[in-house]
Amino acid sequence: MIDFTIPEKTEKLKEKTQKFILENVIPREKDPRQDSHGPHDSLRKELNNEAKSLGLLSPSVGKEWGGLGLNMRDMSVIFEASGYSLLGPQAMNCSAPDEGNMHMLEVVANKEQKEKWLRPLAEANIRSCFSMTEPSPGAGSDPTMLKTTAKKTSKGWLINGEKWFITGFNGAKLNIIMAKTSDKIEKGFGATMFLVDNDDPAIKNIRTQNSMESSFPGGHCQIKFKDLLVSEDQVLGEVGQGYKYAQVRLAPARLTHCMRWLGAAQRAHDIATSYASKRYAFGKAIGEHGGLAFQLTDSEIDIQMSRLFIWNTAWLLDQGEEARNESSMSKIFCSEAAFRIVDRAMQTLGGMGITDDTLVERLFREIRPFRIYDGPSEVHRWAIAKRLMKSVVGKNVPT
Amino acid sequence: MIDFTIPEKTEKLKEKTQKFILENVIPREKDPRQDSHGPHDSLRKELNNEAKSLGLLSPSVGKEWGGLGLNMRDMSVIFEASGYSLLGPQAMNCSAPDEGNMHMLEVVANKEQKEKWLRPLAEANIRSCFSMTEPSPGAGSDPTMLKTTAKKTSKGWLINGEKWFITGFNGAKLNIIMAKTSDKIEKGFGATMFLVDNDDPAIKNIRTQNSMESSFPGGHCQIKFKDLLVSEDQVLGEVGQGYKYAQVRLAPARLTHCMRWLGAAQRAHDIATSYASKRYAFGKAIGEHGGLAFQLTDSEIDIQMSRLFIWNTAWLLDQGEEARNESSMSKIFCSEAAFRIVDRAMQTLGGMGITDDTLVERLFREIRPFRIYDGPSEVHRWAIAKRLMKSVVGKNVPT
Amino acid sequence: MIDFTIPEKTEKLKEKTQKFILENVIPREKDPRQDSHGPHDSLRKELNNEAKSLGLLSPSVGKEWGGLGLNMRDMSVIFEASGYSLLGPQAMNCSAPDEGNMHMLEVVANKEQKEKWLRPLAEANIRSCFSMTEPSPGAGSDPTMLKTTAKKTSKGWLINGEKWFITGFNGAKLNIIMAKTSDKIEKGFGATMFLVDNDDPAIKNIRTQNSMESSFPGGHCQIKFKDLLVSEDQVLGEVGQGYKYAQVRLAPARLTHCMRWLGAAQRAHDIATSYASKRYAFGKAIGEHGGLAFQLTDSEIDIQMSRLFIWNTAWLLDQGEEARNESSMSKIFCSEAAFRIVDRAMQTLGGMGITDDTLVERLFREIRPFRIYDGPSEVHRWAIAKRLMKSVVGKNVPT
Amino acid sequence: MIDFTIPEKTEKLKEKTQKFILENVIPREKDPRQDSHGPHDSLRKELNNEAKSLGLLSPSVGKEWGGLGLNMRDMSVIFEASGYSLLGPQAMNCSAPDEGNMHMLEVVANKEQKEKWLRPLAEANIRSCFSMTEPSPGAGSDPTMLKTTAKKTSKGWLINGEKWFITGFNGAKLNIIMAKTSDKIEKGFGATMFLVDNDDPAIKNIRTQNSMESSFPGGHCQIKFKDLLVSEDQVLGEVGQGYKYAQVRLAPARLTHCMRWLGAAQRAHDIATSYASKRYAFGKAIGEHGGLAFQLTDSEIDIQMSRLFIWNTAWLLDQGEEARNESSMSKIFCSEAAFRIVDRAMQTLGGMGITDDTLVERLFREIRPFRIYDGPSEVHRWAIAKRLMKSVVGKNVPT
Repeated sequence: MIDFTIPEKTEKLKEKTQKFILENVIPREKDPRQDSHGPHDSLRKELNNEAKSLGLLSPSVGKEWGGLGLNMRDMSVIFEASGYSLLGPQAMNCSAPDEGNMHMLEVVANKEQKEKWLRPLAEANIRSCFSMTEPSPGAGSDPTMLKTTAKKTSKGWLINGEKWFITGFNGAKLNIIMAKTSDKIEKGFGATMFLVDNDDPAIKNIRTQNSMESSFPGGHCQIKFKDLLVSEDQVLGEVGQGYKYAQVRLAPARLTHCMRWLGAAQRAHDIATSYASKRYAFGKAIGEHGGLAFQLTDSEIDIQMSRLFIWNTAWLLDQGEEARNESSMSKIFCSEAAFRIVDRAMQTLGGMGITDDTLVERLFREIRPFRIYDGPSEVHRWAIAKRLMKSVVGKNVPT
Repeated sequence: MIDFTIPEKTEKLKEKTQKFILENVIPREKDPRQDSHGPHDSLRKELNNEAKSLGLLSPSVGKEWGGLGLNMRDMSVIFEASGYSLLGPQAMNCSAPDEGNMHMLEVVANKEQKEKWLRPLAEANIRSCFSMTEPSPGAGSDPTMLKTTAKKTSKGWLINGEKWFITGFNGAKLNIIMAKTSDKIEKGFGATMFLVDNDDPAIKNIRTQNSMESSFPGGHCQIKFKDLLVSEDQVLGEVGQGYKYAQVRLAPARLTHCMRWLGAAQRAHDIATSYASKRYAFGKAIGEHGGLAFQLTDSEIDIQMSRLFIWNTAWLLDQGEEARNESSMSKIFCSEAAFRIVDRAMQTLGGMGITDDTLVERLFREIRPFRIYDGPSEVHRWAIAKRLMKSVVGKNVPT
Repeated sequence: MIDFTIPEKTEKLKEKTQKFILENVIPREKDPRQDSHGPHDSLRKELNNEAKSLGLLSPSVGKEWGGLGLNMRDMSVIFEASGYSLLGPQAMNCSAPDEGNMHMLEVVANKEQKEKWLRPLAEANIRSCFSMTEPSPGAGSDPTMLKTTAKKTSKGWLINGEKWFITGFNGAKLNIIMAKTSDKIEKGFGATMFLVDNDDPAIKNIRTQNSMESSFPGGHCQIKFKDLLVSEDQVLGEVGQGYKYAQVRLAPARLTHCMRWLGAAQRAHDIATSYASKRYAFGKAIGEHGGLAFQLTDSEIDIQMSRLFIWNTAWLLDQGEEARNESSMSKIFCSEAAFRIVDRAMQTLGGMGITDDTLVERLFREIRPFRIYDGPSEVHRWAIAKRLMKSVVGKNVPT
Repeated sequence: MIDFTIPEKTEKLKEKTQKFILENVIPREKDPRQDSHGPHDSLRKELNNEAKSLGLLSPSVGKEWGGLGLNMRDMSVIFEASGYSLLGPQAMNCSAPDEGNMHMLEVVANKEQKEKWLRPLAEANIRSCFSMTEPSPGAGSDPTMLKTTAKKTSKGWLINGEKWFITGFNGAKLNIIMAKTSDKIEKGFGATMFLVDNDDPAIKNIRTQNSMESSFPGGHCQIKFKDLLVSEDQVLGEVGQGYKYAQVRLAPARLTHCMRWLGAAQRAHDIATSYASKRYAFGKAIGEHGGLAFQLTDSEIDIQMSRLFIWNTAWLLDQGEEARNESSMSKIFCSEAAFRIVDRAMQTLGGMGITDDTLVERLFREIRPFRIYDGPSEVHRWAIAKRLMKSVVGKNVPT
């Protein structure tokens, strides 16, 4: 039955999360133990411990691995609340890329691999990274262009290649590496994922990339694998199925991104609404002037829409659906809506909006990249249209 | 629990509705018994009878009055299916303004009034109109500008004034008239609704207005009340509460508009998608070119969004919530989304799109006005922003 | 030197045109001698005669052929003034498709052909049409898909094929027909234009298409050529060069479309601005509320931008430049801007906007198709991007 | 006569400027002598000297004061070329706020004041700031809210108050201060400007504000005047006329902002176009895919439009027109267009776009604030609409 009631248990968890964010996390937002690559380990650890003691750590991971075992709909509610502070997902260990990596491990990895990697990740004792994207002319949006190779040798798999935008690389313990294991990537087959200890000296950081956001511990890095040797038991799932598992990771990972950024957008919207109701010009609160009133309303609509679309996709995923179109559409809409919201919030704040007097300026820089990563809007739009056209083939449409 | 499952019973009714629309209604879309004011009585009667025999008549009205007694969520599903043809809601007796009038009568009218007016309306034996909007300088978006008056005299209420955009006036049997019964409209109080037999010679059609759409039997009319005398038992509900009842009518009526137009937008989208997959240019189906592919996807997103927003507002109304913000936001989003969809569909069809070779050209003209009636987007945006700002007063927003 | 001064002579002509439009043309806008295919011959003739007596007939045609011999910049000013009424360009004999056809004849046709066709056209004694577009799977946006053929035989050229959207066909005396004269259209070569007397019985009107606009005498028609025999001296210019001449026609024809529609958009904008300054709601003129104020300003910007872009492209064409990019960009911007303007005007007028109480409702239907004809925005955008990318090849761009 | 020819002399100066930017300025873009507040003095000095030796220093200032004496149209061409590097306007001494301050001094100041302040400014020996904007509840967009006061005493004027967003304050020698000299600001009268040596200890920097851009030497500061005593000869122009002079400054200053940012937007567009033509995905250059092709074209249109609008407004100013509407419309359009352009460029570059691998990421942060400063778009839109409505009063608009 069509129903939008948040279950009581989830509602309680949400309230606990909101209290944690307001009382424990937000007061640390200006903690000096942060730089352009997010919170330092000591700050992160502190927050993780507090989250753990409140029963808020690793909400997405199964209970047997130390998490809260939430389904996607529950996550929608909790992650949004967590995203109200940029430090929130770090504090609760449900931020990218770890959260997506943990999900994939939970679904695909074998028992030993889970014990080795998933358990410490879920306990927030280590961090991980996901090495898929490559610099031109390698694989970006088009997976068939994958250049990194893993060759089977007598000693094991020998990996060579270069990656970039490897988020969280510095300091990560686990590196999940996608490499070509066939001559050609065809129909999604031909690449394999490997679980590799990131301390291996055959993995080199070429450079840490400077980007406009600053929330990700470990930064985004350009890295190199030079004759990196890995053993058979480091293969994740089956050889050749790497892109299938990437889908296992990406569909929900895109959606959890939407959830967290929705919380962030809500924060920007709240700041702007509050300011618009207090700042006066030309005889009334600036938010009562049509120009800004419209922006407030449009942001409110964008927020409600994003939330409903997330919930719907989450429900589909909870039913076991692949929900490729819905996950892509959520990503397009939510990433673009969140940016519109924060852009309007900045405009509402006027001059103050472009300074660090409020969080809006930082949110503006943090949210913009989401229209690009996990597949830019353009690639998703194109893929969805193709599927749409396939869906009407042979259908009799009355004109 | 968050759930998007359409109940089995509703799903069955939806399928029956779709079959009816495809097999009984769409084949009559070119029936000559139509003009710029919709289907003639004989065609409408024919369709009503078929709908009735299939158990599809008056879905929104309570069973005791001959309807199907659907709740708002069920209506969301059924009305959308019905709107797939512009004749659908006429055929099923769930079109504006009757559907909204019937709802208001069911909620507000007394037993005698219901027997007199609701029963024949629910049986599709008569039609009704709703006389609220006035020409400048009377009441349009701003209800305090109401000029039509009802003065209490010894013989009863004496109504004088002028109205326009009275949809369905020609041929309507019931006229629901809003008139000022206090010196001033204040805080929503001071106007009263009257249930009047439209045959009264004191009601005059000044002119039937020509508008860009052509789906409404009875047209839109500019009318005049000249010493129209009505008795006490023709007062709907209580004296002075007219605008309160208008809200009872409008919140769901806006939403049912959204439902029907969503069905119409889906039709335009289907026609465009189908065409885009078949028409070739520059070496491939035109829908595979990025420019059109993006438009198809954006329309798909708009449709899904509209549906989810409608369902959510319907659920709120089913819980007994007033849902003023949500109803207004649905109206803004759905009316603008539906127009974007039909505009893109027209563009996709190229030259053919501006001709009557497909229904898209007509849908374009039918859907545009929805951004204006039931309160233009601008008025809703402004009202929502005011409420938003009120909602943050005294709230501590971390900046 | 950068200069935006309208020359005194042109300024005078503009004032004369404006006076003519206000005093002679606009009072005839409701003349009953019009239908969904524009003004009847008698009304058109009347207006042409008045224009002629005022020295306003055929402004785009060379003086030796009876016109005013304006350059493109002068036309920009005069056509805009003429377009303030939908009847204006008809009255002054500078409407599509005749205006473009006359231009092409003047540039390409030989002396005899000019005497035969250009002179009576310039005197507004006959009308013409241009037969290029074909129904699917023929040539629409993609000229290589041309299906109509002209085969050389001993008796002359034998033309067979089908066209649609042939504007002005009914009643036109001259039909300019594009047909394939090679096996393949390659690099713009392989098609030829023929000047044909439209009375030839081998030319058949299959049907007159119903479209949302209603300004074009002769309608848009789907027509057929069945063994249409034409002689060598009916070839326009050289065999095989048809698409080159189509470019001669299209670049300026697109721009004159922009000029005329700019005048029409200005009319809608004036009506809306005037209404917004007089209609009151919520305590002030509705145009003082931010929501509508913004729409007025945005329309003003769109108008100024359109005008400047037209002037700039006109200047380029006057310098003998091909101005393909600029002509395409003008077409994209002006067609989309004009539609935004009329859409906002409709919204500003509220309910009245969707009726024929003002011209806005009709302008809305007249202007929308311009985003499609003469190449839809999508095709132009794509072509421009290709040229842009070519223009940076080998260029050293500092990143 | 309508003409878009750049005069030969200006064309030559443009080429010299472009060469200077490419060869002298861009190679210094990564010079370490820069921080979040632009180039350090030594780097600036170096660039100024090179510009001077090439005859490129202070293009907007009259020749008698050491500048090039360009009119607004020439500036349009030269400033755009200069803005191609963010360091360009600094190098040529035509950046905000000095350029606007110099203009105002040249028009309003007396001979002595010019010798004292304009000459060293034009020689780039000192810098200046303009103290108008105040923190809430002081004067932002609404000048009547001015709180800083200047009281006439026996010893001179005594200034007290607080300002913020005082760009370039740190290190500026001249501070132009706007203060209230009447009880009320009415009809633009009641405020006065003072020319003050910024070293006065009664002027205090409360804090330097951190903002998202980083091109302005001296930063944006919040400052305080505590019993700042100034003498009569420090009054700029006449007492009470401060806002009139602010208009003298603002109309051209807004336009020169547009010119410089247009150059910056062109840079982003060039980088994106170049990348789109070289990066391949899904079998072709990414710019050939419709989705990105459209963005390239739309940016090209935005650039051309911005340029034409700037030229037109410059021409009006050169004719001695006040051009308030045109200057405001240029500001709205150019600031929004420039941001769209850089936003599209970022999207085109994909992941690389959000890093400092190209200048686009920085341009994104530099350009966004322009929609806010010099009056946010919202305030301009509102003001223009009011004037538009005034302009139709009493006008007979045919409906």
